[in-house]
Amino acid sequence: MSAVLGRLAAIVGGEALLTAAADLAPHITDWRKRYVGRPLAVVKPASTVEVAAIVKLCAETRTPIVPQGGNTGLVGGATPDASGRELVLSLTRLNRVRAIDLENNTLTVEAGCTLASVQAAAREAGRLFPLSLASEGSCQIGGNLASNAGGTAVLRYGNARELVLGLEVVLPDGAVWDGLRGLRKDNTGYDLKQLFIGAEGTLGIITAAVLKLFPLPVGRVTAVAAIDTPAQAVALLGLLQARCGERLVGFELFSDFALGLVLKHYPESVAPFRERHPQYALVELEDTQDARAVRSLAEASLAAAIEAGLARDVALAESEAQANALWALRENMSEAQTAEGKNIKHDVSVPVSRIAAFIAATDAALARAFPGVRMVTFGHLGDGNLHYNAAAPEGVDPEAWMQNLARVNRIVHDSVAAFGGSISAEHGLGRSKREEILRYKSAVEMDLMRKVKAAIDPLGIMNPGKVL
Amino acid sequence: MSAVLGRLAAIVGGEALLTAAADLAPHITDWRKRYVGRPLAVVKPASTVEVAAIVKLCAETRTPIVPQGGNTGLVGGATPDASGRELVLSLTRLNRVRAIDLENNTLTVEAGCTLASVQAAAREAGRLFPLSLASEGSCQIGGNLASNAGGTAVLRYGNARELVLGLEVVLPDGAVWDGLRGLRKDNTGYDLKQLFIGAEGTLGIITAAVLKLFPLPVGRVTAVAAIDTPAQAVALLGLLQARCGERLVGFELFSDFALGLVLKHYPESVAPFRERHPQYALVELEDTQDARAVRSLAEASLAAAIEAGLARDVALAESEAQANALWALRENMSEAQTAEGKNIKHDVSVPVSRIAAFIAATDAALARAFPGVRMVTFGHLGDGNLHYNAAAPEGVDPEAWMQNLARVNRIVHDSVAAFGGSISAEHGLGRSKREEILRYKSAVEMDLMRKVKAAIDPLGIMNPGKVL
Repeated sequence: MSAVLGRLAAIVGGEALLTAAADLAPHITDWRKRYVGRPLAVVKPASTVEVAAIVKLCAETRTPIVPQGGNTGLVGGATPDASGRELVLSLTRLNRVRAIDLENNTLTVEAGCTLASVQAAAREAGRLFPLSLASEGSCQIGGNLASNAGGTAVLRYGNARELVLGLEVVLPDGAVWDGLRGLRKDNTGYDLKQLFIGAEGTLGIITAAVLKLFPLPVGRVTAVAAIDTPAQAVALLGLLQARCGERLVGFELFSDFALGLVLKHYPESVAPFRERHPQYALVELEDTQDARAVRSLAEASLAAAIEAGLARDVALAESEAQANALWALRENMSEAQTAEGKNIKHDVSVPVSRIAAFIAATDAALARAFPGVRMVTFGHLGDGNLHYNAAAPEGVDPEAWMQNLARVNRIVHDSVAAFGGSISAEHGLGRSKREEILRYKSAVEMDLMRKVKAAIDPLGIMNPGKVL
Repeated sequence: MSAVLGRLAAIVGGEALLTAAADLAPHITDWRKRYVGRPLAVVKPASTVEVAAIVKLCAETRTPIVPQGGNTGLVGGATPDASGRELVLSLTRLNRVRAIDLENNTLTVEAGCTLASVQAAAREAGRLFPLSLASEGSCQIGGNLASNAGGTAVLRYGNARELVLGLEVVLPDGAVWDGLRGLRKDNTGYDLKQLFIGAEGTLGIITAAVLKLFPLPVGRVTAVAAIDTPAQAVALLGLLQARCGERLVGFELFSDFALGLVLKHYPESVAPFRERHPQYALVELEDTQDARAVRSLAEASLAAAIEAGLARDVALAESEAQANALWALRENMSEAQTAEGKNIKHDVSVPVSRIAAFIAATDAALARAFPGVRMVTFGHLGDGNLHYNAAAPEGVDPEAWMQNLARVNRIVHDSVAAFGGSISAEHGLGRSKREEILRYKSAVEMDLMRKVKAAIDPLGIMNPGKVL
């Protein structure tokens, strides 16, 4: 055992230092299994003090650190490289709820709490923690914050960044920054927590956070609208924002082709309408006060949408089970697509006003370059965020199709840039978009990012090879 | 004329370079007239290109720059020092609305637009820009963002930081960072705009911003509740949050003594109740849909508060004029207090759950140290933010009282720190709290802030002597 491993074992105890291949296995590859690393070891500290001691040792010995939460990220941001030099630091054992303050509407949790457990702690206290995404059962709140997670309720509650009041962070030299404040207003200098949110572990390790809580909704309405075009979806979104305002929580778009994949690969799922339609909008509204009023409002607004020619038909869930079934259609799209065969995925955003033009232009450009390409387009339209995925033309082997990855990415991402958008709306850059981003960010912006990185992590030991 | 002045005149034209004493006068002192500076000159560029050229020249010649908006700040953050070396860069002429995108709910404005003109541009387009504060007629949006302004609608809409999607910034070397994105989701590396929001001009000059717009409210309810204690106010806030949720926009507390000062110095103002009560809560609710429903909800909730013993009495405004009159009571408190004589002001925040204990403990500590001290306590209780001001005991000359400034600050700020709070909730550090903050921030935090400053502004020319 190397000297470093010996000293790590002394910090955390031998049980919490993993080096055997079987123990390392869950930690060395990413969710999509695109990367496989070979770490020095996996270390599982149980406290902030242990995290700090580990980082201090790593700074001393120039050992690169890869922070890892639930390891559900989609850009390889938590996967070690193959050098055998990187230490995976798993936050899993930092999983305590440290405090809940109902009068302040805050919850203080450690980084290793799963998102579902954070939601549950809030709910048990009669409050809502609104961050919600497909992997919530296994992703961890530290990772959610490090990647500024989005999800399905951003329209009403914002991204993960908007849900944080304070952070505790172990810095690259092993010092602990205690920024665990529960304040709604604090203008005493630079808002340092913003540096670490969304930095994907490249500036330090988030070990705990003070999160905002909200009143629990009492009325929830889930509906699907059948529509013709993405442009109609944007107009429908505008109508609902005008008529329902703050009650609009989610507005998702998916194409009939995307729906078809779910119906095929999830045989228990049911299409929302007897007929099929070109596009669908999944709409969720909620209110903290009056369940009947928000349902009436939803019914009246959707009826007005049909009247205005913005929807062909609408279906409202009549029960919690029906609502969940509608959401399952949307949430199973990613897996259904994988079951259908590999495809070229994009997580992009553009201004909401430009979505329809973006889809039309990019669909056309791809069809010119790859006749017969099948687009699987779905996503959080309310946030301007699309999962815009290109599947092989009928009859083309998916493996062979994947050879076009770079060309497809170029067409899609150049189009995103032309429409003033982002090539990573909610997944981050991690390892997979680190080179790609250089084409789209200005030299001025990259230079600013590098200056920040060099200032905070001068030795470059924090998650090297990610983001920058 | 020095060589620098000649080159500045060449950039902006002679008219836009002020050096005569009469022209400089409005720019050399702060709102509270605590600081008077002597600048090299005041320069008024008309475009981002001109700002960039000026900053580049300043970097070359090591000329310190003091960015200045409406010059309404309360901490001397926009006042030059007395060295005669600092260049005041006024953003006043960058006052165009560059774009409005209704489908995207965004407004792109230049830094020199007054807050009122930004609100008006949104309103004319049928949207709400919710930032609102007493100086909105003259403060400028660039300054609002540089100081992360708070105001009266933070409970529902957040601070200025939460209202921004993108920024354009001239960096300390004169490069322009174009981060003017209108995206709700963008996770492509560090969220650089967060660095400049709240940095008080020490890291660069904000020249334009993409702001979020919201649906216009249709129902507005303004009410005052008569209460006994701050603890009761916190309980009333909890009741209203539970019963009214997202409809609660503002929750302000003020003491009877504070009310008395307004009644005395604004003879046209009227007390909200026939009897006087120890404390008052000013409550504002709004809804984007149903004006009658939100009024009924407010009435029922306030009746429930009386029932529950959380209010002695309530008064609802019956007209827009009455609502404005109630708000005027709150908004004139600061000026009424000035009319009464100088006093020692604090802009502090603590977790909402600790407000009552904070006020009790700090009132007691001050009374022990300064028998007869008269506390003028009011503020945005919903955000945990108090303007906690200490006036001279009856019969003590206000000028003499101000000799106690340092001792009073020490007692108040030490108490804030003990309650986990902030010594500058919404005004910033500027020049006036730059030394004071060193007592309350950890060495780790100050070190991080200094590293960021050194990385972005290595020559130290951006608003030196402010914040850090």
